[in-house]
Amino acid sequence: MKFVYLDHAATTPVRPEVREAMLPFLGEECPGNPSSIHAAGRAARKALEDAREKIAGLLGTQPREIVFTSGGTESDNLAVLGAARAAAGLGKHVVMSAIEHHAVGHAGDQLKEEGFAVERLGVDAGGRVEPEELKKRLRPDTVLVSVMLANNEVGTLQPVEEISRIAHAGPGKTLVHTDAVQAAGKIPINVKALGVDLLSISAHKIYGPKGIGLLYVRKGVRLAPLLVGGDHEFGRRAGTENAAGIAGIAKALELAVAEMTSENQRISALRARLAEGLREHVPGVHLNQHATERLPHILSACFDGIEGEGIILHLDQEGISVASGSACTSTHREPSHVLAAMGVRAQLAVSATRYSLGRATTEDHIDRAIDATARAVQKLRQ
Amino acid sequence: MKFVYLDHAATTPVRPEVREAMLPFLGEECPGNPSSIHAAGRAARKALEDAREKIAGLLGTQPREIVFTSGGTESDNLAVLGAARAAAGLGKHVVMSAIEHHAVGHAGDQLKEEGFAVERLGVDAGGRVEPEELKKRLRPDTVLVSVMLANNEVGTLQPVEEISRIAHAGPGKTLVHTDAVQAAGKIPINVKALGVDLLSISAHKIYGPKGIGLLYVRKGVRLAPLLVGGDHEFGRRAGTENAAGIAGIAKALELAVAEMTSENQRISALRARLAEGLREHVPGVHLNQHATERLPHILSACFDGIEGEGIILHLDQEGISVASGSACTSTHREPSHVLAAMGVRAQLAVSATRYSLGRATTEDHIDRAIDATARAVQKLRQ
Repeated sequence: MKFVYLDHAATTPVRPEVREAMLPFLGEECPGNPSSIHAAGRAARKALEDAREKIAGLLGTQPREIVFTSGGTESDNLAVLGAARAAAGLGKHVVMSAIEHHAVGHAGDQLKEEGFAVERLGVDAGGRVEPEELKKRLRPDTVLVSVMLANNEVGTLQPVEEISRIAHAGPGKTLVHTDAVQAAGKIPINVKALGVDLLSISAHKIYGPKGIGLLYVRKGVRLAPLLVGGDHEFGRRAGTENAAGIAGIAKALELAVAEMTSENQRISALRARLAEGLREHVPGVHLNQHATERLPHILSACFDGIEGEGIILHLDQEGISVASGSACTSTHREPSHVLAAMGVRAQLAVSATRYSLGRATTEDHIDRAIDATARAVQKLRQ
Repeated sequence: MKFVYLDHAATTPVRPEVREAMLPFLGEECPGNPSSIHAAGRAARKALEDAREKIAGLLGTQPREIVFTSGGTESDNLAVLGAARAAAGLGKHVVMSAIEHHAVGHAGDQLKEEGFAVERLGVDAGGRVEPEELKKRLRPDTVLVSVMLANNEVGTLQPVEEISRIAHAGPGKTLVHTDAVQAAGKIPINVKALGVDLLSISAHKIYGPKGIGLLYVRKGVRLAPLLVGGDHEFGRRAGTENAAGIAGIAKALELAVAEMTSENQRISALRARLAEGLREHVPGVHLNQHATERLPHILSACFDGIEGEGIILHLDQEGISVASGSACTSTHREPSHVLAAMGVRAQLAVSATRYSLGRATTEDHIDRAIDATARAVQKLRQ
C-alpha cells in the first residue's frame, strides 16, 4: 500500500538536507560542549552561533534575540508564562485569542491559577480575531497579548501586525507574543515588520527534527526563565544546547524560506483541487476556513451526520493519514475549541477532518483523499 | 595535531550505534507524530513506547514511570520545582546538598523566591554528604530532599540509598530526588534499590545526543508540570516527543549498561595512571577526590600557585581538552561551589582542572596530559 501522508500540520519528515546539516553533531566530528572553552567547545560554539545568525537574518532580527528551546510548546510557554510572570509587578491582565494552541491556552490557565486575569478574544466565522475587539479589552495592567500568526486547525491567518500596533498603543506596558509554529515557512515572517515582542517557531513543522524550537525575544524584554541552571542562551534558558537540532532548525528554516514562493503556489493549487473535489463529490461538506486569509496547506472540513474519527479511521485503512482537530489533542475527544469559537455547532464539529498538505503531496494524493473521503462519508451515513 | 579529548563529563560524542538508532526518525522512514491516531502516528508511538520500555527495564522500573525531557537541566528542574510546587500545601521546606549541579541548586534559589526554606547540606573533604546530617535537618514540612548520585566536578558518589531511607523515615511526607546525570552509565542504577522518587538522566553524557533526557517519576508522585499544552508524557510534560532523541537515549543507555563493567575497569586504570603521573611529575598537586567513593572517569586536581584557566589554555594549545570546574560554569569565573564546600581554599580552588576520561581515551592520551600539565604548571609558576 502506498501511503498518502496528509498530516503535515501535525509533523513533517526531516528533509535530507536538514539531516545532512545535523550529522556533524551526531558523531565524532564536533564532540564539544558549546559552553567549554577549549578547541572542541569553541567549534561547537561557533556552529551554534552561525545557526543563530542565519536564523536571525531570515527573521529580520539580531542573533542576540533568538533563544533556542526544546520546541514549540516550550517557546510558547516561555513567552506566555515567562513574560507574564516577569511583568506581574506591572499588572496581572493577559489577553489571548480563544483559538490558541493549547501550549498558549493552557499557559493562560496556569496564569489564572497564579492570580492573573486572562481574557480570550473571540473570532469570526472564518476564525479571525477582530483587532477592534482587542482595543476594548486593553487595560493599564495588561502585560501580555498573545495571538497566533496562523491557526493550526483551520489555517486562518491573524492580523498580528495590527494587533501589535493596537496593543503597543494601549494604556499599559503590553508585550505581544505570536505563536508562528504553523505559519513559519508558509508566510514571510519579519519580526520587526510584525512588531511583536515574542514569536515562537518549531522545527518539526518545517521539515526539521522534533525536540527543537526557538523563541524570538526582542531585546529588552524581561522573561522569567522556565529552566534554570547554567548561563545558556543569554540567561534566558538553561541547559546544554541541542547542537544537532539547532543546525537542523537553521537549515530547515533556510530551505523553507528559499522555496516558499514556488512551494506555496504548488500547494495552494493542490488545496484548491481538494476543496473543489470535496465540494463536488461529498454532499453535506462544510469547509472551516477564512475566505481569503489562510495558510496554503491546511484544509479543515466537517460533514453532516458524521463522527470525525470514523472518517479518519476509514482513510487510515486506505493508507491515507489525516487528522481530527490537531495531533496534540487527538488522544482525547473534547470538541475542538477552535471550531467552537468559530461558531461551528458541536454536533458538526465532531466530524472535523484536517487535511494538511506538504512537500510530498501530489495531485494523485489529493484525488485519492477526495475519493476515499466520499466513500467513507457514504458508508458512515448508511 | 591529534586532539586529546579529556572532557567527557562536559559532553560525549554520539556513538555510531546511537546515531544509527536515531536515523529512522530523521527521514521519511517514520514521519508521524506519536500523538496522531493514523498509521504513521501509531508507528511513531510504538517506537517511542519501545524506547520507554527498554529504559524502564534498564533502570528497574515501569515504562509509566519514565518521562522524557529535553535534557538533564529540564529533568532536574521538573523534579525540584515540580515536586516542591506540587507539595507546597504540605510544607515549604527543601533540603539539598551544597554541591548540586546548578540545575538543582538554582532551582533551589528559585524555590526560595517562591517562599520555600531551602537548606544546603555540607560535605566532607572528599565531597561526600553525611547522612546523619540530613537526619537533623528533616522537619514535618520537608517536602523534598535532592542529593546527586555523583558529583560532576570531582566525581564523588553520594550515599543516596541511605539518604532515601532516612528521608522517607523522617517526620514529613518527603520525596527524594537524585541527579544521576554523571552517574548514569558509570555505576549500576536501579531506582527501586536506590529508593528514590525522582531520578534525572541526560543522554549527551553517555554518548547520546544533546537535547534529550529523562526523569524517573515514581508512580503516585505529584509534580507541577513545567511545560503545559498537549497531554504528552502522561500529562507530566507537554510537547511533541523528540522521536530521534528518544531512540538515541534508549540505545545510549543500553550500550552504557552493557559495557559498564569492562569499560569501568579500563577507565579506572587510566584514571589511576593519570593520578599517579600527576603526583609524580607535578609538585604541589592536590587531588580533589574521595578516597574510595568516586566515579571511575573524573579526576579533579588543583595546583599550588596557579590559576586554573592558565593550565586549561596551555593544554588547549597542545590539543588537549580539559575543563575547569564544569562546562556549565566555565563562561563565568566564580570559584567552584563544590570545592568551596569541600573546604578547598579559594586561592587553590581557582586552579582546579578537571580531566574526564571516556571511550576514546588511551594510555597515550593520559601520558600526553600528564606531560603537558607538568610543563604548563612549570611555565605558569615562573
